[in-house]
Amino acid sequence: MSRVEIFDSTLRDGAQAEGISFSVEDKLKIVKAMDELGVAYIEAGNPGSNPKDLEFFRRVKDIQLNNAKLTAFGSTRRRNINVSDDANVKSMLEANTEAVAIFGKSWDFHVTDIIQTTLEENLKMIEETMAFFKENGKEVFFDAEHFFDGYKANPEYALQALEAAVKGGADCLVLCDTNGGAMPLEVYEITKKVCETFSVRVGIHTHNDCGMAVANSMMAVEAGATHIQGTYIGFGERCGNANLSTIIGNLQLKKGYHCIPEENLETLTSTALFVAEIANIVLYDKEPYVGRSAFTHKGGMHIDGVNKASHSFEHINPELVGNTRRFLMSEVAGRSTILKKIAKIAPEITKDSEEAKQIIDRLKELEHEGYQFEGAESTFELIIRKHLGKYKSFFELENFKIIGEKPAKDSKFSAYAMVKVNVDGNEEFTAAEGDGPVHALDIALRKALEVFYPQLKEVHLTDYKVKVLDSKDATAGKVRVLLTSSDGKNVWSTVGVSSDIIKASLIALVDSIEVKLLRDLENKMRAYM
Amino acid sequence: MSRVEIFDSTLRDGAQAEGISFSVEDKLKIVKAMDELGVAYIEAGNPGSNPKDLEFFRRVKDIQLNNAKLTAFGSTRRRNINVSDDANVKSMLEANTEAVAIFGKSWDFHVTDIIQTTLEENLKMIEETMAFFKENGKEVFFDAEHFFDGYKANPEYALQALEAAVKGGADCLVLCDTNGGAMPLEVYEITKKVCETFSVRVGIHTHNDCGMAVANSMMAVEAGATHIQGTYIGFGERCGNANLSTIIGNLQLKKGYHCIPEENLETLTSTALFVAEIANIVLYDKEPYVGRSAFTHKGGMHIDGVNKASHSFEHINPELVGNTRRFLMSEVAGRSTILKKIAKIAPEITKDSEEAKQIIDRLKELEHEGYQFEGAESTFELIIRKHLGKYKSFFELENFKIIGEKPAKDSKFSAYAMVKVNVDGNEEFTAAEGDGPVHALDIALRKALEVFYPQLKEVHLTDYKVKVLDSKDATAGKVRVLLTSSDGKNVWSTVGVSSDIIKASLIALVDSIEVKLLRDLENKMRAYM
Repeated sequence: MSRVEIFDSTLRDGAQAEGISFSVEDKLKIVKAMDELGVAYIEAGNPGSNPKDLEFFRRVKDIQLNNAKLTAFGSTRRRNINVSDDANVKSMLEANTEAVAIFGKSWDFHVTDIIQTTLEENLKMIEETMAFFKENGKEVFFDAEHFFDGYKANPEYALQALEAAVKGGADCLVLCDTNGGAMPLEVYEITKKVCETFSVRVGIHTHNDCGMAVANSMMAVEAGATHIQGTYIGFGERCGNANLSTIIGNLQLKKGYHCIPEENLETLTSTALFVAEIANIVLYDKEPYVGRSAFTHKGGMHIDGVNKASHSFEHINPELVGNTRRFLMSEVAGRSTILKKIAKIAPEITKDSEEAKQIIDRLKELEHEGYQFEGAESTFELIIRKHLGKYKSFFELENFKIIGEKPAKDSKFSAYAMVKVNVDGNEEFTAAEGDGPVHALDIALRKALEVFYPQLKEVHLTDYKVKVLDSKDATAGKVRVLLTSSDGKNVWSTVGVSSDIIKASLIALVDSIEVKLLRDLENKMRAYM
Repeated sequence: MSRVEIFDSTLRDGAQAEGISFSVEDKLKIVKAMDELGVAYIEAGNPGSNPKDLEFFRRVKDIQLNNAKLTAFGSTRRRNINVSDDANVKSMLEANTEAVAIFGKSWDFHVTDIIQTTLEENLKMIEETMAFFKENGKEVFFDAEHFFDGYKANPEYALQALEAAVKGGADCLVLCDTNGGAMPLEVYEITKKVCETFSVRVGIHTHNDCGMAVANSMMAVEAGATHIQGTYIGFGERCGNANLSTIIGNLQLKKGYHCIPEENLETLTSTALFVAEIANIVLYDKEPYVGRSAFTHKGGMHIDGVNKASHSFEHINPELVGNTRRFLMSEVAGRSTILKKIAKIAPEITKDSEEAKQIIDRLKELEHEGYQFEGAESTFELIIRKHLGKYKSFFELENFKIIGEKPAKDSKFSAYAMVKVNVDGNEEFTAAEGDGPVHALDIALRKALEVFYPQLKEVHLTDYKVKVLDSKDATAGKVRVLLTSSDGKNVWSTVGVSSDIIKASLIALVDSIEVKLLRDLENKMRAYM
């Protein structure tokens, strides 16, 4: 099976998308996710450009990567200086990555009018920068910026730029459709010409300004390219980059190429959701392969067809990429999944029973209110248990009060919480201070309950996410809070929805504690069975 | 200039998208918009399928169409009956449109396994249904469902299905990639084969399950197709249909085809916004040509390049399609964008001055702390003004207190806020109740300030977004709040960061009010200049 290298630039070109801003923590998480997925290269930033990227490159060294090589991005040296004197080049070395991607000009107009130097000097800038990084032991990609526009304007010069890179020792020539204006057939023909002319690897880097980013990447592979640059869920400057989650699906499932380990294909969807979550964007529903609607059927004839044979209206089986089939406006939506969950808790409940129907109705009602149980299965379990009466709360939150105040003009903002809990008739009242009222409430609640359940000391929150569901209602809009907790052995997530962020947080917090106590009880019981 | 017919199915295939539901009024509005844009055909519904569509076809007759022909959609007759006895066929006649699009099976598997009839009967169903509508004076499209999958499975039978349609009198053979799984080169080759085999017009109808809908449409045109079916902004079953706004841009601006009247190209964007508005969806920011981010630049070098020559980083001039260029503020935006902002406020500050350097450092520092000024340029302006001493606050928030409580086990959760503001030595103390403490604080602050600044009554929040920056710190993690405000004339956004969501909200809220008061003052001043 031929291999096509996947080069993910979510953290570099993706960060140039409107609305995207990664913290160092965010970047580290995405590096891990991309490595686990199995991409070949992770372009993680432009170390010369800002302090955040430098801090990132220092910290990323602690992460053990199993599949991907880290790549730093930057430009060829500036005109009329020595490579080794170029500040950007120095920062790239400092980033200490295995590979570097160096972009340079291949469109004569850009050389003369934008960076304003001579055509000869630009060729030297390319060759010398390549040579410098090769001497420093790097794997070197030459990103030929605007290659297709350049080739159409002046094919000789565009090829000379590539030749300069090859002379300098570039390992791979990456043909960039920087402005996203190229059409598939021209990408095919021009890439073919480059593959015939040079013996080094050829790559493709496309943008989606004509809706062609994925198609142009595929056409380049047809023409001989073996390296694809893009961003995992397609975000990037303007209309975005080539969407790698689509390309991996197309290449590996349709064309028989090897891009990522076969067993990881079924994580395509969860990885897309994870990247979207970290980037704090909503994954586009219609995204091929990984979008929420990608295998959603609404037309009656389609639903009927899929029930007879799924390939009648699905190009692949959604399970192959970890996505799920959904039928809309139909009671069968998700039924079997829910029934499987119910069966775990109450095996006696049959699928056609009144109880099963009631639980499904209740879930639909909650989803309509803004709940989402994907990633919060613990809350889902508690709801089923409560509905079936298979539940007794471990505590009651009798009352609580939170206060946030800045008592005088020059004083600091302080937050406190007071709670009273009741466990089997025994009350405990306590208070705590925190970084804001949610934090104070979190501390106070645990403090009160630890008197009765010392094992709660093991629990800490590992994640806290807030999503404003209807941001148009502004501060009165509904919010969904997703909490992830851990006791060092297990990790679980709970969800709360309310128009008040404190209440939504509290719902998720109470459930998180209930789940811990329930799990401990189940473990104890097991010893007697 | 060769013509390619644009066939819009927003109202038919588009209505099969998740979340789309058109009223009759909606449909009439979209018919008008598509006709004004100048498409050739509007597929407006399936008159046999529901009463809403029949009512629509009655009412649409009152609309004078100048460019487009209305088209009704339906299937070939059912197996083993006379065409004239088929209820669906009768409804299509009743719709009384100039053209009809009839879909039929061209994949042998679908004939035998899904509609469960013989291969011969299916060919008769096609031929007889075509002939029936031709006898009734219609222009007839044959939508060959699953044509590409069918051709790949059994090319002889797929071509026989087309031949039956031609024998029946079909005016145009529309090759459908119903499941969206076809790749560009195979679409090119198969379409070419069809164009060589038959002398009638050939059309293409694609879906986006592999991200190829637009590319496959373009490839079909390269192979000889002259008719393209899609939906105007791409929504449709699963991952959607071919996006016509992209295809029109590509064909007319890149390939020199004629699709719509030349002078209407500049309405591509406003038409897209209108269709999204009627469909009650948010137009995808990254949509080629018409999306909000399609000509938005964030990277410093890109902004610099576009300022020198727009085609350096834009594949077309946005004005051609009625879109606009935007530059974003951000850590990757680079000095020149920031310096332009500064120059607006303080023209005396030169780009190499110590003050310019300090402001840029301050900005980077704030971004490192989690601030993001993209989309919150007002906060950015206030920071510059404060740094330069060109600012006097309109009010002081002397002190405040928020309380959230559930005073007893069965009582409801309530939230209150108290604030004291000081405007030029005059204090105002007030309190308010709200849906949670942030909402209460929002109301109380405005209430107090309206005493001094009655124009604040015009202001309301239109958007409230929360991002937990480092969700691993859980409830003590930093959050960024982005508020958007409007006074009916202007819209502005402000941002606040804190480990306390209340404080972050308050920072953004205070800035939002300050911006409104500053703008009003500037407007008043202008009268004296």
